[in-house]
Amino acid sequence: MLSQQELINLFRETREKSEEICSFLETEDYVVQPIENVSPPKWHLGHTTWFFEEFVLKKYAEGHQLYDKNTAYVFNSYYESVGEKVIRTNRGNLSRPTVSWIYDFRKYVTKQVLNLLENNSLSDEALSVIEIGCHHEKQHQELLYTDIKYILGNNPLFPVYNDQFRENPVQDFDQEWINIEEGIYEIGHKTNDFCYDNEQGVHKTYLHDFSISNKLVTNREYLEFMESGGYDDVLLWHAEGWDWIKENNIQAPFYWHKIENTWHQYTLNGLSKLSLDAPITHISYYEAFAFAEWKGMRLPTEKEWEVAQSKFEWGTRWEWTESAYSPYPGYKKPDGALGEYNGKFMVNQKVLRGASVATSKNHTRYTYRNFFHPQLRWQFTGFRLVK
Amino acid sequence: MLSQQELINLFRETREKSEEICSFLETEDYVVQPIENVSPPKWHLGHTTWFFEEFVLKKYAEGHQLYDKNTAYVFNSYYESVGEKVIRTNRGNLSRPTVSWIYDFRKYVTKQVLNLLENNSLSDEALSVIEIGCHHEKQHQELLYTDIKYILGNNPLFPVYNDQFRENPVQDFDQEWINIEEGIYEIGHKTNDFCYDNEQGVHKTYLHDFSISNKLVTNREYLEFMESGGYDDVLLWHAEGWDWIKENNIQAPFYWHKIENTWHQYTLNGLSKLSLDAPITHISYYEAFAFAEWKGMRLPTEKEWEVAQSKFEWGTRWEWTESAYSPYPGYKKPDGALGEYNGKFMVNQKVLRGASVATSKNHTRYTYRNFFHPQLRWQFTGFRLVK
Amino acid sequence: MLSQQELINLFRETREKSEEICSFLETEDYVVQPIENVSPPKWHLGHTTWFFEEFVLKKYAEGHQLYDKNTAYVFNSYYESVGEKVIRTNRGNLSRPTVSWIYDFRKYVTKQVLNLLENNSLSDEALSVIEIGCHHEKQHQELLYTDIKYILGNNPLFPVYNDQFRENPVQDFDQEWINIEEGIYEIGHKTNDFCYDNEQGVHKTYLHDFSISNKLVTNREYLEFMESGGYDDVLLWHAEGWDWIKENNIQAPFYWHKIENTWHQYTLNGLSKLSLDAPITHISYYEAFAFAEWKGMRLPTEKEWEVAQSKFEWGTRWEWTESAYSPYPGYKKPDGALGEYNGKFMVNQKVLRGASVATSKNHTRYTYRNFFHPQLRWQFTGFRLVK
Amino acid sequence: MLSQQELINLFRETREKSEEICSFLETEDYVVQPIENVSPPKWHLGHTTWFFEEFVLKKYAEGHQLYDKNTAYVFNSYYESVGEKVIRTNRGNLSRPTVSWIYDFRKYVTKQVLNLLENNSLSDEALSVIEIGCHHEKQHQELLYTDIKYILGNNPLFPVYNDQFRENPVQDFDQEWINIEEGIYEIGHKTNDFCYDNEQGVHKTYLHDFSISNKLVTNREYLEFMESGGYDDVLLWHAEGWDWIKENNIQAPFYWHKIENTWHQYTLNGLSKLSLDAPITHISYYEAFAFAEWKGMRLPTEKEWEVAQSKFEWGTRWEWTESAYSPYPGYKKPDGALGEYNGKFMVNQKVLRGASVATSKNHTRYTYRNFFHPQLRWQFTGFRLVK
Repeated sequence: MLSQQELINLFRETREKSEEICSFLETEDYVVQPIENVSPPKWHLGHTTWFFEEFVLKKYAEGHQLYDKNTAYVFNSYYESVGEKVIRTNRGNLSRPTVSWIYDFRKYVTKQVLNLLENNSLSDEALSVIEIGCHHEKQHQELLYTDIKYILGNNPLFPVYNDQFRENPVQDFDQEWINIEEGIYEIGHKTNDFCYDNEQGVHKTYLHDFSISNKLVTNREYLEFMESGGYDDVLLWHAEGWDWIKENNIQAPFYWHKIENTWHQYTLNGLSKLSLDAPITHISYYEAFAFAEWKGMRLPTEKEWEVAQSKFEWGTRWEWTESAYSPYPGYKKPDGALGEYNGKFMVNQKVLRGASVATSKNHTRYTYRNFFHPQLRWQFTGFRLVK
Repeated sequence: MLSQQELINLFRETREKSEEICSFLETEDYVVQPIENVSPPKWHLGHTTWFFEEFVLKKYAEGHQLYDKNTAYVFNSYYESVGEKVIRTNRGNLSRPTVSWIYDFRKYVTKQVLNLLENNSLSDEALSVIEIGCHHEKQHQELLYTDIKYILGNNPLFPVYNDQFRENPVQDFDQEWINIEEGIYEIGHKTNDFCYDNEQGVHKTYLHDFSISNKLVTNREYLEFMESGGYDDVLLWHAEGWDWIKENNIQAPFYWHKIENTWHQYTLNGLSKLSLDAPITHISYYEAFAFAEWKGMRLPTEKEWEVAQSKFEWGTRWEWTESAYSPYPGYKKPDGALGEYNGKFMVNQKVLRGASVATSKNHTRYTYRNFFHPQLRWQFTGFRLVK
Repeated sequence: MLSQQELINLFRETREKSEEICSFLETEDYVVQPIENVSPPKWHLGHTTWFFEEFVLKKYAEGHQLYDKNTAYVFNSYYESVGEKVIRTNRGNLSRPTVSWIYDFRKYVTKQVLNLLENNSLSDEALSVIEIGCHHEKQHQELLYTDIKYILGNNPLFPVYNDQFRENPVQDFDQEWINIEEGIYEIGHKTNDFCYDNEQGVHKTYLHDFSISNKLVTNREYLEFMESGGYDDVLLWHAEGWDWIKENNIQAPFYWHKIENTWHQYTLNGLSKLSLDAPITHISYYEAFAFAEWKGMRLPTEKEWEVAQSKFEWGTRWEWTESAYSPYPGYKKPDGALGEYNGKFMVNQKVLRGASVATSKNHTRYTYRNFFHPQLRWQFTGFRLVK
Repeated sequence: MLSQQELINLFRETREKSEEICSFLETEDYVVQPIENVSPPKWHLGHTTWFFEEFVLKKYAEGHQLYDKNTAYVFNSYYESVGEKVIRTNRGNLSRPTVSWIYDFRKYVTKQVLNLLENNSLSDEALSVIEIGCHHEKQHQELLYTDIKYILGNNPLFPVYNDQFRENPVQDFDQEWINIEEGIYEIGHKTNDFCYDNEQGVHKTYLHDFSISNKLVTNREYLEFMESGGYDDVLLWHAEGWDWIKENNIQAPFYWHKIENTWHQYTLNGLSKLSLDAPITHISYYEAFAFAEWKGMRLPTEKEWEVAQSKFEWGTRWEWTESAYSPYPGYKKPDGALGEYNGKFMVNQKVLRGASVATSKNHTRYTYRNFFHPQLRWQFTGFRLVK
């Protein structure tokens, strides 16, 4: 558990980071929502602020004056149990409140929370909700990067976000297979540091022998799969994966463009030639699975990944696992609205482990269970193989 | 035909007016497209400018330097025969080019066209295309008003556009029925002034006796229809109209809101109590038809309207007629891309006659044939009865 | 007005004809509904019978015992004002009541109506409803042919209906252009014979000079259009027609199949080589319009067709006209459920004139106004040109 | 492994059973497909026959004469790698081949397979494919029951299938909680008897303490959940479950009808009052999960179920588990088309364990892994609780 002073630092750093990410945007970039999963940046900025006002200030800051009682509900996301909300697909239709209104809202709430933290001795419960709010905002920071990438990368003008963000670190070491021996292992979050409810409940699991790659699959390897007809061989695919690639005419990873016979990739630095040695990214679970089938290998389960992770480098790609997102033994969801955070998504999604180039500092740990629907590709997803 | 000097004035006034309409917007308001039919204001500003560069400057301004050869196609609308375009539903997903880029593009093109007009003696063909371009932009000015109204009026915060725009002029005169006698009448545009191709081809038509109201149907009358169960009596409705109101749960005109048991209406001045004496507006053809059935009357045909119009006031509402949009006898669509302007829409739409509070000055004439699908309500539509 | 004895003959002949049409079917063919517009043959047999029980026997046959009070509503079609109904798309999901149940239902109702007609002196109103019932059933006889053709012709086994039905009579006479002079003409049904409400209201109309072809457009001519790229030239099409052919990948008339480089056509006699001299059929209004554009001609209006029809042969194809389906001047729809017959469809549909190879005897007259949505092709539609 | 004589018996009994199930149908009942998941009974009869001709006779019966080379592909289901097929949603649109054709096809193929089995000494491979074919047909027998129930039970006339089929056996014993102790257990199919590929790969798993109910949840208990507002409490539901019940307006199990304030249930014996003591059935995973949440308990995982199953009665309901359908450690899918049987469905589905009143004899074993999407309800699904 963080001290109150540590929490002040965490809070301050978190709030600043969100605004720094957006500092490279034009006002117009804050507004659009090209697909349901991609929220407008201004919505992220407002929603993470609404979270602190709704769950912290309303409850723990005596006499708190709401910034604007008519507007806040625009920033409720999925908390069905906390009053009205704007339906998700509608976020990109709202020109108001404006970006500058939202920055003012942020300033006000940030100041009030700091005021609360600096001048009061808060209960563990209150401190814990503020900590969750910081981690919640860090999650949205990753979404800011991926949603901004979607917004700019699907614009026919392919505008540059900035020229500093590094998406494609090369793995400059040799391929090795790490052997893990059959036996009983312990899974789950063991320390007192922050974690989400879905990581809790340390429990034993029995694993059989397996070997896991120390490297992520690269663009070069994936191109071989494509060139050998991987997207046309029905036997490599799940039935739903096959229908999905055919209906959506998918024949390459997301953000890949063949221009005058050369593969290019859109990154936050703009459009450029594909770097063959970079780890593959923006790929669905279906594609990762089909690649593994083609190799005669498979994806790790999330438990295998957690047990082996100390023996390889990770953190540049969210790594698809074979595991469906399910509760750990003994999982209990928290009471009330914060109980809507994780448990209600435990169906029809796959677990991803690790972290990515877009994950915020201090938001990375080896027990972290990220999850997405198997067809989604706008995150920095990748994978490693097991045999 | 306008003189070159008259055309300079028309062009200058037209270009200024579009920007004046938008001067009340926040940057964010320029960007969104909440439904397919409502284009982002920045798109209207860019598209009307693209029109002049594509059809005037490229063709008639020797040595014209394109403002930006990679960007223009974003502003092509429906001219299938003029290269690539962005699909219509996608306009609201484009944050770039920015609003300020578009204003610079406008300035450049306005200046080049004025330069062309002021320093050259242009062919009739060139002058005619510039004149069409002005009228084209005036059409988009009306769309700017109605699209802005949609964007703001469907925002849960109901922001005000400005407090000057007058939507609801009251008809302060008595109800009368104007009788028109059976006989042969001439229809179509007869002068040399500007008109669209679809108004041309003066021709005879035979009309039977009819009486047409000198007043538009009012909110008060429409409320009676609603309160007598008009939306629940299947026998008043077209089959497709009935399905449409049931599927969309439609029980009142667009922009009406019942708040604490009182009907309110969103106008460009914000949300306020319904003015009972104002002419009804934002209504579909289906609703206008059902109201007429309920009254035991009917809507006029477009020919009846044109023959009778000199005997009543019009110009505040686009008036639904019973007429489907079809070619006049002898109609020939122009060659080339400008031929895509009207003829290709002559199916499944209804003609509306008159003009509305949002129609630009000098864009009003009694032969004008406006047309929309029968379910559309975001324009300032209304109707008058015939018996 | 028919005498009671004439009506007995009409009724008897009509009831027998429906069953004769179905005598070539297997039980399974009676059941399926491959698209919303194509009803299962057993539904047609039941619905036309329900009509007589609902509108005739219940009202005019004293002490009539319903055949089965729980089942009848399955056969209500679109009469929203007459109680419950099965939604249209659901007809093909109903295996019960069985075909043999329906034939028993038919026998019972036929016998009761004949009993009523033979042993009573009926009011004009009652006779008139029985006459409408016969014409209603004749309309469904045409639908039986076209729906059976759809069911068999879209089965991958292309089964034969029978080898007698003649779809493709050749027009063995020369092409001529019939000139009609400008002037006032009278339109509408003028005799006392049966007609529908939508043909009534004789009225004057003013026509301008036109020339109309004495021949229907043939498969040979249409093939020329196809081979010259007609389906790829956007300028020939309505915007909605273009979207429709692109979304549905339409490149030929319905029931045409290119097999080993030769065009074949499915007819009720099975699959065989296309007869080049036969009149084109199973074509949408959009395609007819595009062909006319390509020829530099146009389709007739329904008024032109009616005025000219005595000078050419017609009756093998329903001929698309340029006219939208609208009420004649002075049109009044009948009171009650029978008022739902025609008026409520007077929007978004095109008028077809003439009759087809599938139209029942005594169900043909030159004032008949058939109507369909512009994209529908499962009827025996064709067209002739005007210049 | 079965002896050849045992296989003859199994084959004969299997083929007869399918026809016995259908012996209660009218011809029309064989044809319809009211939703995508429910295939027409005639399709099941043809498809299970096609399987034997395609995978057995074509390969192992020398000189086999195909029954009809043009028709067979109609009965291919999902084997993407074996040539053309009719798309699944289209099965109910095919009136041909007829039911009687299919029975002839069955007779022919049954005779040829028996001929092959009785007069030849077959390879293990061939015997194994025939055995798979029998189990495949047994699976379709269960689908025949559930699809027939859907077809009749969604007909507004609620016809009876027969009066012998028993859906609702009462559990006449007391509620007990069976405790299973923490430790390592072995999972998977251990004998040489037939099983599917997805059950193979015996492996160890580590389970924590749990208690599982010896009884299935009953209608009575489920009604309590309903009456306490279970369908209206968002916190009990998965996000996707909540959306699903709201979009589909679901407020009770499938086949339940409230008639004059009393709950009724359609069974294959017709519509009758709900039996409160019968185990709940025709319920989605989402509903089972919400019920367990409401009780403060949970569903078992498939491993827990397998380990505990010898201590309770099962076999009347397919029991939803918390487990997503995934490969066992070391799972390898078979080569070729038969490899499409299981592996390609291992995403987005939940495992059900046990068997139901509709499961065929000899098609029941405690290692059997059934699987369906979480919203599907037309199978005889139920559940038991764990705490």
